[in-house]
Amino acid sequence: MPLRIGILGSGAVGMYYGAKLAHAGSDVHFLIRGDLTEVRQNGIFVRGEGENFRVPKVNCYNSSEEIGPCDLVIIALKATSNPDLVDLVPPLLHEQTVLLTLQNGLGSEEFLAEHFGAERIVGGLCFIAVERHSNSEVERYDYGLIVLGEPARPATERIRQIAAEFSRAKIKCSVTDNLSLERWRKLIWNIPFNGLSIVAGGIDTAAIVGNQNLRQLTLDLMNEVIAAANKCGYALPADAWREHMKRTDSMIGFKPSTLTDWERGKPLEIEAIWGEPLRRAVAAGARMPRTEMLYELLNKLDRDRHNSPT
Amino acid sequence: MPLRIGILGSGAVGMYYGAKLAHAGSDVHFLIRGDLTEVRQNGIFVRGEGENFRVPKVNCYNSSEEIGPCDLVIIALKATSNPDLVDLVPPLLHEQTVLLTLQNGLGSEEFLAEHFGAERIVGGLCFIAVERHSNSEVERYDYGLIVLGEPARPATERIRQIAAEFSRAKIKCSVTDNLSLERWRKLIWNIPFNGLSIVAGGIDTAAIVGNQNLRQLTLDLMNEVIAAANKCGYALPADAWREHMKRTDSMIGFKPSTLTDWERGKPLEIEAIWGEPLRRAVAAGARMPRTEMLYELLNKLDRDRHNSPT
Repeated sequence: MPLRIGILGSGAVGMYYGAKLAHAGSDVHFLIRGDLTEVRQNGIFVRGEGENFRVPKVNCYNSSEEIGPCDLVIIALKATSNPDLVDLVPPLLHEQTVLLTLQNGLGSEEFLAEHFGAERIVGGLCFIAVERHSNSEVERYDYGLIVLGEPARPATERIRQIAAEFSRAKIKCSVTDNLSLERWRKLIWNIPFNGLSIVAGGIDTAAIVGNQNLRQLTLDLMNEVIAAANKCGYALPADAWREHMKRTDSMIGFKPSTLTDWERGKPLEIEAIWGEPLRRAVAAGARMPRTEMLYELLNKLDRDRHNSPT
Repeated sequence: MPLRIGILGSGAVGMYYGAKLAHAGSDVHFLIRGDLTEVRQNGIFVRGEGENFRVPKVNCYNSSEEIGPCDLVIIALKATSNPDLVDLVPPLLHEQTVLLTLQNGLGSEEFLAEHFGAERIVGGLCFIAVERHSNSEVERYDYGLIVLGEPARPATERIRQIAAEFSRAKIKCSVTDNLSLERWRKLIWNIPFNGLSIVAGGIDTAAIVGNQNLRQLTLDLMNEVIAAANKCGYALPADAWREHMKRTDSMIGFKPSTLTDWERGKPLEIEAIWGEPLRRAVAAGARMPRTEMLYELLNKLDRDRHNSPT
């Protein structure tokens, strides 16, 4: 029997992976909190090197109740919307439903476990550069690997089943026995690029790596993250920054998701990407002064905007 | 015989102290590189709590040659204009001329010593909040103390003579036997406030200390500077940040000079305030990661502007 899949979150990541799965024939149901007209009329266009396709008929709904129980629910909302999940998730659950969080940073599995039980929760890390151009169009710039794993335990059979479903949809994926380590590995990229893109004045990745000062700062931040991960017990190699820089140097300028959030006036995933890693690092005896500085500056910018009348 | 005093630099600091001295009857001569019409017509207005006066007749000139040799030359140009001093200073010198630099940060005495001989050089640190409103008007917001000293040696008789001249003009001043220590003490304020005022989006001191995130960051930066000073051999007490915060909390919001420079499209004193302290700290084995981050961000902002067509 095919997996019944729910997608929570109609941002770039949810749209892209949901459309890939639907395009491959998976039984996908999107929760879209907003106007459904455009998606119902146009479907979803996916653009990117080697893939240009349209999902003509998209199963989309305004409420979880309309979707009902699923076998797999992919959580692709921003971490800043987590409080909403408390109401959005329950109608999607049956006894065996697996919740796969694709959220950035740290703290996502813990939040979901607390509310819906630790047994259901698995995690995925998206190494992808993807941008939503409209309610019905998404563009992928960089490759799009997902790393799937169980929180705090080795990969299980269900993880391999999800990986198989993804692979069938030509979503590149791999399975890890150490999801938390991979979360830290991803932070090596997100902590500098997502933060500097805003603090340095609304610039993309190419502008960051192309500026000698910001490039140095990026490397310093990356080293801080690697050292903190190691203090927390996740053995990232000292040169783990290298693959990130190489990949970023080779891709076209891309706006990190936090910059896109910023430009659209949305709240920033500050706690997930900077706050929680910082707290865990400090608790483990690591120092992350540059990360802390980004955290303080981003908080300031975010709060100013939040507190000022719009 | 009265001291013949030359003032190089017609920014807020040069105007304010020059006008105070002239108002008290000192023999003051201003080098102003720009249109003299306004100053010649209006004189200089000084505003501030407890002092509102006008110097009706200002001796001002477009070239050092017109001024000729002075007994005391006060260097109040931005450190970014130091290369100009190589031509501007010589016509002002006789054998005993003393050069008093009021420049911010580190490296000023060394630069002057290299070009004009170490014997002539003395330094002054301005603890003042002052802003130039026009070519003929300057306003003081905060008290205005000058700390005078010899570089790398105890205070001498000539320092006490300059202090006496300043005191006569009701310029609050004190004399130090450790000018470098006082330079570091001033950096405790300049490094955070001058930098954050720009990086956090063009905000004044009240906005910095009034924001919980930036206040924390300010304290972290201050502690970094104090630790670095100690590593460099300047024994600032661990709570040396306290007087700075207290003073800043009690004064009205003030734009640090670097923010004013930024708003006016002028080059920033990045090397004097952040670069040189950072290099000396690192050479002494101290780490200043937050200061380094400010340095990289400010360099990036400054270079972007400098390189982009105007």
